[in-house]
Amino acid sequence: MKNRKILLTEQEVPEFWYNILADMPNKPLPPLHPGTREPIGPEALAPLFPMELIKQEVSTDKWVPIPDAVRDVYTLWRPTPLYRAYALEKALDTPAKIYYKYEGVSPAGSHKPNTAVPQAYYNQQEGVKRITTETGAGQWGSALAFACNLFGIECEVYMVKISYDHKPYRKMMMNTWGAKVYASPTDHTQAGRMILAQDPNSPGSLGIAISEAVERAASDENTKYALGSVLNHVLMHQTVIGQEALKQMEKAGDMPDIVVAPFGGGSNFAGIAFPFLRLNFEEGRNIRCIAAEPSSCPKLTRGVFRYDFGDTVGMTPLLPMYTLGHNFVPAPIHAGGLRYHGAGVIVSQLLKDRLIEARAHEQLECFESGVLFARTEGIIPAPEATHALATVVQEAQRCKEEGVSRTILFNLCGHGHFDLKAYEDYFEGKLVSHEVTQGEIEASLAQLDTPLIG
Amino acid sequence: MKNRKILLTEQEVPEFWYNILADMPNKPLPPLHPGTREPIGPEALAPLFPMELIKQEVSTDKWVPIPDAVRDVYTLWRPTPLYRAYALEKALDTPAKIYYKYEGVSPAGSHKPNTAVPQAYYNQQEGVKRITTETGAGQWGSALAFACNLFGIECEVYMVKISYDHKPYRKMMMNTWGAKVYASPTDHTQAGRMILAQDPNSPGSLGIAISEAVERAASDENTKYALGSVLNHVLMHQTVIGQEALKQMEKAGDMPDIVVAPFGGGSNFAGIAFPFLRLNFEEGRNIRCIAAEPSSCPKLTRGVFRYDFGDTVGMTPLLPMYTLGHNFVPAPIHAGGLRYHGAGVIVSQLLKDRLIEARAHEQLECFESGVLFARTEGIIPAPEATHALATVVQEAQRCKEEGVSRTILFNLCGHGHFDLKAYEDYFEGKLVSHEVTQGEIEASLAQLDTPLIG
Repeated sequence: MKNRKILLTEQEVPEFWYNILADMPNKPLPPLHPGTREPIGPEALAPLFPMELIKQEVSTDKWVPIPDAVRDVYTLWRPTPLYRAYALEKALDTPAKIYYKYEGVSPAGSHKPNTAVPQAYYNQQEGVKRITTETGAGQWGSALAFACNLFGIECEVYMVKISYDHKPYRKMMMNTWGAKVYASPTDHTQAGRMILAQDPNSPGSLGIAISEAVERAASDENTKYALGSVLNHVLMHQTVIGQEALKQMEKAGDMPDIVVAPFGGGSNFAGIAFPFLRLNFEEGRNIRCIAAEPSSCPKLTRGVFRYDFGDTVGMTPLLPMYTLGHNFVPAPIHAGGLRYHGAGVIVSQLLKDRLIEARAHEQLECFESGVLFARTEGIIPAPEATHALATVVQEAQRCKEEGVSRTILFNLCGHGHFDLKAYEDYFEGKLVSHEVTQGEIEASLAQLDTPLIG
Repeated sequence: MKNRKILLTEQEVPEFWYNILADMPNKPLPPLHPGTREPIGPEALAPLFPMELIKQEVSTDKWVPIPDAVRDVYTLWRPTPLYRAYALEKALDTPAKIYYKYEGVSPAGSHKPNTAVPQAYYNQQEGVKRITTETGAGQWGSALAFACNLFGIECEVYMVKISYDHKPYRKMMMNTWGAKVYASPTDHTQAGRMILAQDPNSPGSLGIAISEAVERAASDENTKYALGSVLNHVLMHQTVIGQEALKQMEKAGDMPDIVVAPFGGGSNFAGIAFPFLRLNFEEGRNIRCIAAEPSSCPKLTRGVFRYDFGDTVGMTPLLPMYTLGHNFVPAPIHAGGLRYHGAGVIVSQLLKDRLIEARAHEQLECFESGVLFARTEGIIPAPEATHALATVVQEAQRCKEEGVSRTILFNLCGHGHFDLKAYEDYFEGKLVSHEVTQGEIEASLAQLDTPLIG
């Protein structure tokens, strides 16, 4: 009988997060103040984040210890299984060996709790009573609701109104874990009231929801804010994925030639890829790490590398990153977690330095790969994860054409239980591919007056 | 750090199913023909089931080998984890030790694939092209769709129309695995057309859906029928759960005093309990096995032991079982999998012989336990599973009152991702408890003209 799963014991949950900043040949440029456009230090983040997370945000220590209380919660679902995708390989008739790390076994159903748990923990340690955040389709909001509940912290989620109305299941999940979920824009905040005054029927947006969550945190000393991707500490927390996968690949007596992950803000990709990039840095290996993004939101493959805001309304510090411009409005694809105009600064610098690769895929191609996976390996992937699958299928087909066996590892970051409507639309022929014209990208970028990077 | 999870390797997936018929002191009485009411043999089942499953249905071999091809598919998710529920224990402030076996890690999200996979396999081996079945809320239908897809068999699911309309997610899941799902009653069958002629807007029922699925199988030699509970072979396939759990308890250096599972038709309960009952039979142990049923459908605690039909319309053989009468219409509780008037014959005989126990719980009590579990252990349980939880909470509280530590094991048979509306209703105070009066039960039983027992 074949060994499909490579498992680890709870004692093998990593004891440290890996901080790639320590190993990068070129460190990212500093963030700039949104008003003065001068470099800012960590103290600027103090109203929004607990001190320990701010320290992690700027730390250059290579290994950051994971507190026992966080590891203890991790063991509710970690270590996650690594699978050899024998059935997918057979269906593709490829000489490639395909492995996947399955993060959908977490209670929230994705990789997001890997950072939600330490964020809730450090807030609790510093006496924070309430954490606010924004959420679109609800993956991040449900992970934070889960984590806050375990540490006895109130969780207040501003959920984009159109998602709140159309995707009730994730809201119900957050309620089950005791979070308060509001359809944003609300009348609780100045930002929300301002929007509602302009348009009482506003469907909301991630930008508005961020503004509401940040305003609430900034105006109450017992309340902090949490973000589910982009920031350095968030990416670092996710490295438990790749560290486990590395150990599991070693157990399987194998090592990936190619590592693939979906790309939204970068935490999913960083989680699985950074521990393998470490081997490239330390041992001169040449493991290719590929970020798979939607062709409807192609910041890595067609954006520019310059300073831009992290949010739509321009409240955050300016960050040096690949961006389509903070006014870019991505098409309404089902992979809601990938509809973000920018990219985390670490991942952007790595791409700039050609230490990682990026590839874009059409929505229809992604769902085709997703259905193939569901019908071979059994697990129905989240729409975000199907982007990684599309890259995997391409690489496996290339192996077949070239008659070469390569080992491919990808991050199956979550299940699609709350995204089945997307599959239904696919089967009914209602899904479309969203092509972005060069003109649209240029028009969005032309609106930027943010600093260029030399 | 505490050890929450006890894991097994793929090599430890059981190699045999355990057939409790071999060990029962009193064997069940034979099924009777629905017309002649004379005992029938296995050949009567030949139009509906492949020969190998019919052999298993009547086998008294203690151990039945699991084919390699089935074990290979099992490894997609098996062995499933056994958890020590430290957080729940702490919340209950109980000296009891609580363990749970988590079957929600299967692709379909419940224990149902444990029997769907071998059923699909044996059908494929005997050249069957298509399998029909009925489904209510969709747990069983999605498990069979998953299994048929893997073995290249067409799957045709008759889904009760009101569920088809109100619970679209499980239908979408079945479609993703390539099944054809019809809102029953349909115009494909005589049974369906007859119902539609009487009531073009019929909401359907499980009884009607069974009639349609059985009619389709009986009228086409390439088509067979599959059932997700009640029958002996179905219960036997589920014993992989308890066999793994036994090995895991031994690894944990512990042994349950009490084993608990939800009870619908019996496969969930049989799956975890029978391998522990084996120890009672073989070694004279006294492990208490408790079936937890809804108080709105209390066949084990308030029904009678007599011959009755397995379906509502009276097409199936008459089976010796605990029943509320085949015309009993259970209240519309959210635990759809437990809304069945009868019980499998093996479990009924064991209860009759006082070798197992049964307990009934109100819907509100169940959801209260389910929310406590979700907020401590993280996993949101299926409504069916909350019935076991209600028993567990009672037993843990009794331990506290008596100052005694007992070890309790229960079957967390599935997650509640597709049942979140039920939790929402609970939080909004819309859920009610459905009390069945003695008069209602007696009125249903008074309609029976089926043979009495003993």
